Amino acid sequence: MLKYQDVAKKIQQAIYQQNLPKGTQLPNIEGLIQQYQVSRTTIIKALNRLERHGVIYQIQGSGIFVRQPKKQGYLNFLESHGFSVDLNDLPGSSQVFNVDVMQPNVKVKEYLQCEDDEYVYYIKRLRLVEGKVYGFEQSYYRKKIVSYLNKEIAENSIFSYVKDICKVNIGFSDKYFKAIKLDEDIAPYLGLNAGDPALCVEEIFYTSSGEPFDFSQIIYHYDNAKFFVQSHSK
Amino acid sequence: MLKYQDVAKKIQQAIYQQNLPKGTQLPNIEGLIQQYQVSRTTIIKALNRLERHGVIYQIQGSGIFVRQPKKQGYLNFLESHGFSVDLNDLPGSSQVFNVDVMQPNVKVKEYLQCEDDEYVYYIKRLRLVEGKVYGFEQSYYRKKIVSYLNKEIAENSIFSYVKDICKVNIGFSDKYFKAIKLDEDIAPYLGLNAGDPALCVEEIFYTSSGEPFDFSQIIYHYDNAKFFVQSHSK
Repeated sequence: MLKYQDVAKKIQQAIYQQNLPKGTQLPNIEGLIQQYQVSRTTIIKALNRLERHGVIYQIQGSGIFVRQPKKQGYLNFLESHGFSVDLNDLPGSSQVFNVDVMQPNVKVKEYLQCEDDEYVYYIKRLRLVEGKVYGFEQSYYRKKIVSYLNKEIAENSIFSYVKDICKVNIGFSDKYFKAIKLDEDIAPYLGLNAGDPALCVEEIFYTSSGEPFDFSQIIYHYDNAKFFVQSHSK
Repeated sequence: MLKYQDVAKKIQQAIYQQNLPKGTQLPNIEGLIQQYQVSRTTIIKALNRLERHGVIYQIQGSGIFVRQPKKQGYLNFLESHGFSVDLNDLPGSSQVFNVDVMQPNVKVKEYLQCEDDEYVYYIKRLRLVEGKVYGFEQSYYRKKIVSYLNKEIAENSIFSYVKDICKVNIGFSDKYFKAIKLDEDIAPYLGLNAGDPALCVEEIFYTSSGEPFDFSQIIYHYDNAKFFVQSHSK
């Protein structure tokens, strides 16, 4: 973690631990430099990060203020790498059905820009939060980039493993989504009926050098999974 | 528009007009400084903006590259102020049902942090793209911030009007969404049946000084409205 990220985390923790209401003014930049004993540049980068993440807003010439905290139980749609629960740290878990090595089908091959002779890991799992079913996920990892995966890894965070163990620099993602009608194959996984609504999110993840390495499709339970996005105009 | 925004726009136009494929390397920073005759700082800010917007990616020590262009017909979920179609510039329009002044109900009052005696504009309209129904929108503007609205304005972009005419600095937004089952009141607006799926997006918009001024709920047609988000890890 870079120093400005660490400072950003500390400021954020201070806000949430003290339960500061929306609109509370934080110390100014000089005050924060004193408090965290870091350079001006580090504080400015930390504040910009917190602004991007929807934790604070800055009014030029006026100060730094706390933003509305996220509603409880909503998933952060942007920070989740495929899936993860924000700040409030609800306990998430995964029920893994299979971890297979296979040749990609045409769609996956195209999305992941695979060569003809490439193999992918295919993982099918149910994502749960506090024991409730949130989504049914099917994901495909290129074996040439993520050379090993197993059930145990898939039961925890594949992304932490990919970053920390496989040393893949995760760069960016393209995410596509829409509401759908559940078909009779997927509905039972979510405990729902065919024809019920769901949110279908497809995402392609790229390394920082622009190579796609993961394609995931998650079908979210319409009643259990709610999302938020905090945006700012800059 | 600030200079770096203008340069970002020009670089983006150049990419799309030349239809540069994903992975195409752009000139380096020196080259771009020459080409656009602006300072290094301006180029760096322009590139960071384009990276945030998913147009390019930068590899340290290696260069600047074109990202996968967005799929045709998908709405940019982040840049839309409530609703607007990206780059490809599909023709959007609105069918306005009413523009009324009223006292807000409890939910709207809370979201917009209204005083007891405040009034809001309530606007009900259908959003269309190329004549197809995309969504049914109900939005509420605080009269003390947006003091005048009418049908003609609502048929075009309320946000342009709010920015350019009312001189409101739009700051940030909180967006909440989930898949829902349509009820029998809303379904007919979308030409669908009760029980059909939809994406329900609720968004609160704030001025740059942190005052909420607009609450909007859009119920999107599950088959017509598709969305994308391009994210990056920074």
